[in-house]
Amino acid sequence: MSSKLQVGVIGAGRIGKVHAETITFRIPDATVAAVTDPNGTVAEVLAQRCGIPKVYARTEEVFADPAIDAVLICSSTNTHADLITQAAKAGKHIFCEKPVDHTLEKIDAALEAVAQVGVKLQVGFNRRFDSNFARVREAIRSGEIGTPHLLHIISRDPGPPPISYVKVSGGMFLDMTIHDFDMARFLMGEEVTEIYASAAVRVDPEIGKAGDVDTALLVLRFANGTIGTIDNCRQAPYGYDQRVEVLGSKGSIATDNVYPNRAVISTAESVRRDLPLHFFMDRYLDSFEREVREFVEAVTHDRPTPVNGADGRVPVVMALAARKSYLEGRPVRLSEVSQEAHEAMAR
Amino acid sequence: MSSKLQVGVIGAGRIGKVHAETITFRIPDATVAAVTDPNGTVAEVLAQRCGIPKVYARTEEVFADPAIDAVLICSSTNTHADLITQAAKAGKHIFCEKPVDHTLEKIDAALEAVAQVGVKLQVGFNRRFDSNFARVREAIRSGEIGTPHLLHIISRDPGPPPISYVKVSGGMFLDMTIHDFDMARFLMGEEVTEIYASAAVRVDPEIGKAGDVDTALLVLRFANGTIGTIDNCRQAPYGYDQRVEVLGSKGSIATDNVYPNRAVISTAESVRRDLPLHFFMDRYLDSFEREVREFVEAVTHDRPTPVNGADGRVPVVMALAARKSYLEGRPVRLSEVSQEAHEAMAR
Amino acid sequence: MSSKLQVGVIGAGRIGKVHAETITFRIPDATVAAVTDPNGTVAEVLAQRCGIPKVYARTEEVFADPAIDAVLICSSTNTHADLITQAAKAGKHIFCEKPVDHTLEKIDAALEAVAQVGVKLQVGFNRRFDSNFARVREAIRSGEIGTPHLLHIISRDPGPPPISYVKVSGGMFLDMTIHDFDMARFLMGEEVTEIYASAAVRVDPEIGKAGDVDTALLVLRFANGTIGTIDNCRQAPYGYDQRVEVLGSKGSIATDNVYPNRAVISTAESVRRDLPLHFFMDRYLDSFEREVREFVEAVTHDRPTPVNGADGRVPVVMALAARKSYLEGRPVRLSEVSQEAHEAMAR
Amino acid sequence: MSSKLQVGVIGAGRIGKVHAETITFRIPDATVAAVTDPNGTVAEVLAQRCGIPKVYARTEEVFADPAIDAVLICSSTNTHADLITQAAKAGKHIFCEKPVDHTLEKIDAALEAVAQVGVKLQVGFNRRFDSNFARVREAIRSGEIGTPHLLHIISRDPGPPPISYVKVSGGMFLDMTIHDFDMARFLMGEEVTEIYASAAVRVDPEIGKAGDVDTALLVLRFANGTIGTIDNCRQAPYGYDQRVEVLGSKGSIATDNVYPNRAVISTAESVRRDLPLHFFMDRYLDSFEREVREFVEAVTHDRPTPVNGADGRVPVVMALAARKSYLEGRPVRLSEVSQEAHEAMAR
Repeated sequence: MSSKLQVGVIGAGRIGKVHAETITFRIPDATVAAVTDPNGTVAEVLAQRCGIPKVYARTEEVFADPAIDAVLICSSTNTHADLITQAAKAGKHIFCEKPVDHTLEKIDAALEAVAQVGVKLQVGFNRRFDSNFARVREAIRSGEIGTPHLLHIISRDPGPPPISYVKVSGGMFLDMTIHDFDMARFLMGEEVTEIYASAAVRVDPEIGKAGDVDTALLVLRFANGTIGTIDNCRQAPYGYDQRVEVLGSKGSIATDNVYPNRAVISTAESVRRDLPLHFFMDRYLDSFEREVREFVEAVTHDRPTPVNGADGRVPVVMALAARKSYLEGRPVRLSEVSQEAHEAMAR
Repeated sequence: MSSKLQVGVIGAGRIGKVHAETITFRIPDATVAAVTDPNGTVAEVLAQRCGIPKVYARTEEVFADPAIDAVLICSSTNTHADLITQAAKAGKHIFCEKPVDHTLEKIDAALEAVAQVGVKLQVGFNRRFDSNFARVREAIRSGEIGTPHLLHIISRDPGPPPISYVKVSGGMFLDMTIHDFDMARFLMGEEVTEIYASAAVRVDPEIGKAGDVDTALLVLRFANGTIGTIDNCRQAPYGYDQRVEVLGSKGSIATDNVYPNRAVISTAESVRRDLPLHFFMDRYLDSFEREVREFVEAVTHDRPTPVNGADGRVPVVMALAARKSYLEGRPVRLSEVSQEAHEAMAR
Repeated sequence: MSSKLQVGVIGAGRIGKVHAETITFRIPDATVAAVTDPNGTVAEVLAQRCGIPKVYARTEEVFADPAIDAVLICSSTNTHADLITQAAKAGKHIFCEKPVDHTLEKIDAALEAVAQVGVKLQVGFNRRFDSNFARVREAIRSGEIGTPHLLHIISRDPGPPPISYVKVSGGMFLDMTIHDFDMARFLMGEEVTEIYASAAVRVDPEIGKAGDVDTALLVLRFANGTIGTIDNCRQAPYGYDQRVEVLGSKGSIATDNVYPNRAVISTAESVRRDLPLHFFMDRYLDSFEREVREFVEAVTHDRPTPVNGADGRVPVVMALAARKSYLEGRPVRLSEVSQEAHEAMAR
Repeated sequence: MSSKLQVGVIGAGRIGKVHAETITFRIPDATVAAVTDPNGTVAEVLAQRCGIPKVYARTEEVFADPAIDAVLICSSTNTHADLITQAAKAGKHIFCEKPVDHTLEKIDAALEAVAQVGVKLQVGFNRRFDSNFARVREAIRSGEIGTPHLLHIISRDPGPPPISYVKVSGGMFLDMTIHDFDMARFLMGEEVTEIYASAAVRVDPEIGKAGDVDTALLVLRFANGTIGTIDNCRQAPYGYDQRVEVLGSKGSIATDNVYPNRAVISTAESVRRDLPLHFFMDRYLDSFEREVREFVEAVTHDRPTPVNGADGRVPVVMALAARKSYLEGRPVRLSEVSQEAHEAMAR
């Protein structure tokens, strides 16, 4: 038992619970040694469920515990960057939920701390580990569809989050599209240089009043000339809609949604299927397991993590460029945004 | 027999032949009374095949023939506008292949002539008559999917045309995207106000040398705030790729390609289908028949044509806006282009 | 014009109308020269619609008309065999709707007349000309799926015919399954030697009172050991259900139904399609055209017809074997039925 | 920890390993307390992997251990019936892999022992717990498709087992079709009264030499008149083929195979998918977890098991009837077989 990776879980909310259960019940090579959460009861319940021996009242105790090898940062986004820095200074390997932060300054500081100490960092872009998207990446890497020309990412939520969440989310581009920015880079193995964002409030006027949008169409230009789009909407009445399609010089690959079963019912009214999986936990359950499993393997075998700090930073640059494009009504180069960030840091 | 609509076919090339055969073999209420083509042999062969009694050497003879009720203009694009004007002045009803012309000045002159005489004009946007796209329009009109938020049009050719054709085509936006501009208006029942075009040469460098593009992603903003995209490529290795998808407040509707059969073959290598229909004549055969049938009915029952002169003009404005957007790297409002056209006409 | 095949249509009912329109509007190499029907008005209406010059009051007049090259027998089943004999004696080539007759004696007499005169005979098993089933046959012939092991034919009507029709139909096996018996032979290129039929009255008790069944599952043994099934039901609430599936040593091929469009609608209730084509005229429209076209070509080019007299006879043997199997509750060899027929003829 | 159900695993082969891992890593309410296997090394390896505290050399030790609440019988089929009897006498609840035995005499003796002691017994028909088949059953139970008329079960293995296994398997009907017999009863909620089996050796002549068949088509008659078929083949080159389809008075429901991803690749050759899951462990992984979970819940909550002893017996009767039908070339009523068994027992 002592050879298992000892993991501390910071944040026992929805995603913290998923990761803790994954480690406890599905990953023999790791164990959750400690958990902490501002809400002590939530932490206690999770500890009970997963047999976690230590429940710490304060996050600092996790970092101070010499038995802890690695931490999973599952707390609210505004705490991510600071916790990464603290964890790095304590010599803990780090798995951090996305996004790392809403500002490049804080991200850069955190990545600097990680780099100085040399601990491993993985950012929680779980969708890379979904078997469908992994299959698309493979088709591109292997040359199965030739040189990519056009990319489409469809990414729609079943319904909008509460307005209270919208207000602190950093906006749709940082909260929701961030996954798609990562997906675009992951699939194409190429960086985006310019983004044009057309966006609107179509689903709920309250989202507009909160200064955000709920529907968007983004055009990405990659360094190699490939053109990509991201289609976002906060509401797809039929469920979680998560698809990609790539046209290449030799063919195309397209993925469909994931359904709870493969049954087709034909009646006098229609030929129909049950709705695709509605809840992101159901839709991406396997990917959550795989990302944590790969993190544990990266740490225990001393290999690079599959989603590193730079992978956590670039999508934030993309989100900032998208926001700027939307506000200014023109395509924006990523260098404009990153430059501004650098200048701001220099002040 | 004498009560049949007497039709003159101008141009006995590929599309002229299709229309002549449709009228001859599939539309009992009309007959091809005359045909003309610069290449007399081609006209003779078609006359033989369809039992067309008169083969005229010159187009003027068609217009001068008092027995002719209506003409189908199937000649090269650069002749369309003038022939519309002549036909209108001769009092003939007109079916004209798309596009009407590459310039708004000539289009406006032709539409003016039609308006003055009061003959009927239908423009050959055949795809409106495809059962798949008609079903999408119905879903939008009936409210089946609620208020539309996002539209996607995928429109890819199996392979690029000869470079010689590319050079006189007016460019991809006027030659190929023109159908998709019409489709966008048709499906949404709404006008586009602004277009952003991202385009590239990905398929064949020769197309670039000819001053054109072969791959494009366009973002359309409609007057009511709906966002649309058009995805174009001159080459889809698997065949003619023609799909649309609309997300609305109550649901979505998406169409697939058309296949020569509904067979699935499963072997040790893959689970596969035969390729979708490759040739536009196969893919859209039914729609060619339906558009001509509706033209004949519009004339014989004195009803408005389903695709009128304005429907022929607006997609050209859209193509010009797309071209301008591509060249200037920014979204362009249709009013900019139409204004320029009006100013040019005023000079 | 005079070189066109001159066709006489016998019977101006539903299928006679389809064939007459096909020849008139879609087959340039043939023309309907005459039509006859016990109901003179129906014949007149069809003649008007298709421009058929002669309407005969009696069928004998068609046979007596020296200008007629070939006849299409589209009258009621009980007249088929006699009309084939008369047509053959008059030297007319013959296209006859299925089934040729309900008894082997009359079929054999008719085939004998055809053989003696040497005219061409094609039986109207139109489904062979459907692009889906043709694709399956091709997969088997070409070896694409290896040696066939198992065959499934699903063949279900949208709803049962009127009871009055059921009573004179010869029973479901002769009226409905007959098409599937032909399909089994066509697809496999092999004869069936034994049939086991399990059947029931599930849809309408009135059908049972009329001495017939409405639901059946048949097991076919082919000469080469392949096992096949036919699944029949007089009622499929979702529409006309016509599919086949073949498992071979190298793979399988399966066909789906034919739909009016390729649209998928996703709402909060379901992901659905419109119903498959309901009416056999819609479902098999293309095949009706192709079978008549091939008949015309067989006659004009003096080639064998694609569905000959033997092809018309064997499915009747199969239907009789199926009926016997159902009544006796055991598998029945085709030789038992054919033998009985021969013995009956000898009496 | 002490409140967890204490399970003893008998047999540490392929399926024993799956069940042990499921309990260890996925079912918090149970734990594997002991394991035994004739091959001690295999048992040790599994104990190591799952942290099982006790490895017994002999099965009797499992039964004698008072800490054990329930046993999972995962040993070879010929041992099942005796082990059930021993376990029952030891007061252990029992989960036993299918089939219980190849003879009704031994099954009846085992079920008698279970009944006398009153322990719970669940038979390992895992496919009932597959989400696809569960959905079909729900459609039938809820009336969604009305009264069932026709049932099809397609059940084909990717490839045949080794001949050595074929020889001791009890024959295809007892080894492979047994799952489909259970499925037929499960889906329809109704008993089969008569079976007709048409079978052949198509895949491998060696299977024939071993006295078995490798391809079969069975017709089932249910007590309520519904007709069903089972289609079996030992070889489907494209992978594990497991589908069902039911036609009812109001509609139909059909399931497709399960694929590793939802990607479609379109190239100049075909529009294709990757192969369906090949290995039964992959295809039915979820169902193995669910059946064990439900067993644990049935024991801990003192509820009936979802697949009881009678459910284990009837499919064996059906297999014997199918075998008899195949050998005698006629439909066989289940009462014939069960009667023979009863008579044999009485001797």
